[in-house]
Amino acid sequence: MRVSVIGGSLIGAETAAVAEELGEELADRGHVVVCGGLGGVMEAVCRGARGVGGETIGILPTDRREDANPHVTTPIATGMGHARNALVVMNGDAVIAVDGGPGTLSEIGLAIAHGRPVAGLDTHAVEGVTAIESPDAAVDHVERAVESD
Amino acid sequence: MRVSVIGGSLIGAETAAVAEELGEELADRGHVVVCGGLGGVMEAVCRGARGVGGETIGILPTDRREDANPHVTTPIATGMGHARNALVVMNGDAVIAVDGGPGTLSEIGLAIAHGRPVAGLDTHAVEGVTAIESPDAAVDHVERAVESD
Amino acid sequence: MRVSVIGGSLIGAETAAVAEELGEELADRGHVVVCGGLGGVMEAVCRGARGVGGETIGILPTDRREDANPHVTTPIATGMGHARNALVVMNGDAVIAVDGGPGTLSEIGLAIAHGRPVAGLDTHAVEGVTAIESPDAAVDHVERAVESD
Amino acid sequence: MRVSVIGGSLIGAETAAVAEELGEELADRGHVVVCGGLGGVMEAVCRGARGVGGETIGILPTDRREDANPHVTTPIATGMGHARNALVVMNGDAVIAVDGGPGTLSEIGLAIAHGRPVAGLDTHAVEGVTAIESPDAAVDHVERAVESD
Repeated sequence: MRVSVIGGSLIGAETAAVAEELGEELADRGHVVVCGGLGGVMEAVCRGARGVGGETIGILPTDRREDANPHVTTPIATGMGHARNALVVMNGDAVIAVDGGPGTLSEIGLAIAHGRPVAGLDTHAVEGVTAIESPDAAVDHVERAVESD
Repeated sequence: MRVSVIGGSLIGAETAAVAEELGEELADRGHVVVCGGLGGVMEAVCRGARGVGGETIGILPTDRREDANPHVTTPIATGMGHARNALVVMNGDAVIAVDGGPGTLSEIGLAIAHGRPVAGLDTHAVEGVTAIESPDAAVDHVERAVESD
Repeated sequence: MRVSVIGGSLIGAETAAVAEELGEELADRGHVVVCGGLGGVMEAVCRGARGVGGETIGILPTDRREDANPHVTTPIATGMGHARNALVVMNGDAVIAVDGGPGTLSEIGLAIAHGRPVAGLDTHAVEGVTAIESPDAAVDHVERAVESD
Repeated sequence: MRVSVIGGSLIGAETAAVAEELGEELADRGHVVVCGGLGGVMEAVCRGARGVGGETIGILPTDRREDANPHVTTPIATGMGHARNALVVMNGDAVIAVDGGPGTLSEIGLAIAHGRPVAGLDTHAVEGVTAIESPDAAVDHVERAVESD
């Protein structure tokens, strides 16, 4: 399946490690990563997925494919700014949020509005987000949520 | 100025009364109401503003202007679904959230991402939203926030 | 009704005069002008409409209302670039094209795709556009087309 | 490179054969096909590309990936209707138009507005479109146009 991974573009080393492990875990299980295509969590999760040969889709706010981080295999330019956040979550079967600020908060809201299950790793504590401890468990969670849908 | 009012489309009588009072207060002070154009908080705030002759802009998710509630003076069709949420908050100088579910949560995130001050009346308790007790005080708050910007 | 007026952003004095006369004619007959909010034909038609007290909606490609020409009464920011062209024609009951380049051509295509009648004043000669000689006759044409719809 | 192929959704057998041959030629030369993801020219070009193992991106007007034709390898849902036409041409380095109606006309205008070279196979005769006789020659044309850019 496809999993949208959302999170901050400015992150520390610890968060980057979590996102990278998450990308590796998703790709290892055969899932495609969808993200916003830029830096921070988006880049780390793509790097993790690519490290094990996974596929990564980056839906960019700008109108230039070149703005994607180097680990995106399929960049999609939109030229729509934050309005593209709706497309990021719409294109996954489930969503995993890692850390993140207001952009991530908007994607969580859009994900729930679109009926996507949302797992959270150290992210906003809002209704509709299931807080999970590890990347591995987050993938377990969204796999089960999509299967039982 | 323009104030984007966001909130749930399915609401009770008490929330409707708050939203209507908010619309009246905004229009009384010469502000234009921007909203998502549909029912619930969106309709109640427009009804309040129209009751005192105010102007109301409704930015709709559908591609039909006819879908606007009857108190919208300027309906704008988008045909973009939830992606139009970005336009709702982008078109206000400040945002006031009343109650609301995941769509409202997404608009709060987008508002903060766009640098808009956000006042909240009985809405999501998230960082970046200033909780306020009354419609009157919420308008005071956003007026001050925009002035000091 | 609402009439979307589309056309080039870089125009000569003659085209500006035609667009301004068109705006005046539309507003005189009580119609609201919808346009892309920027310069050239967009500005001239708004100037004409405003000169007789008309209402003008400008749906902007940028995310800043301040980018609207000074004759727009209701600017709508989108931050979507050329993708906002779809919204320009969707928000009119009919479309009048004046001169124009590729952006206008895209709007003509979108207008026809959305089922809007299109009158043309010295614009692209493509199927679906009725070439008209004068602003006055163009307004006559779209009024009849919308009535008989 | 990526080539956006645009064209009608309701087509005859002859046009389908041209589009299929075009997809095969593009994929044979290592290019990725970008299209609107639905039927007609979009489906035929994807079928051609897939027949020789090519990659096909379908940028859909709906919010459901399931609406893509079966030959799309990477469906992207947008939920934006015709406004997604801007994304179809933005995501190619060049554009080839095959037949087509008003939607295709809008994409031609958007492609030129975005500075993309446009080759046409029996499509709208408008300024900015280079009319070409065969799929093979159309691919030659856009390859040269992008190289010399």
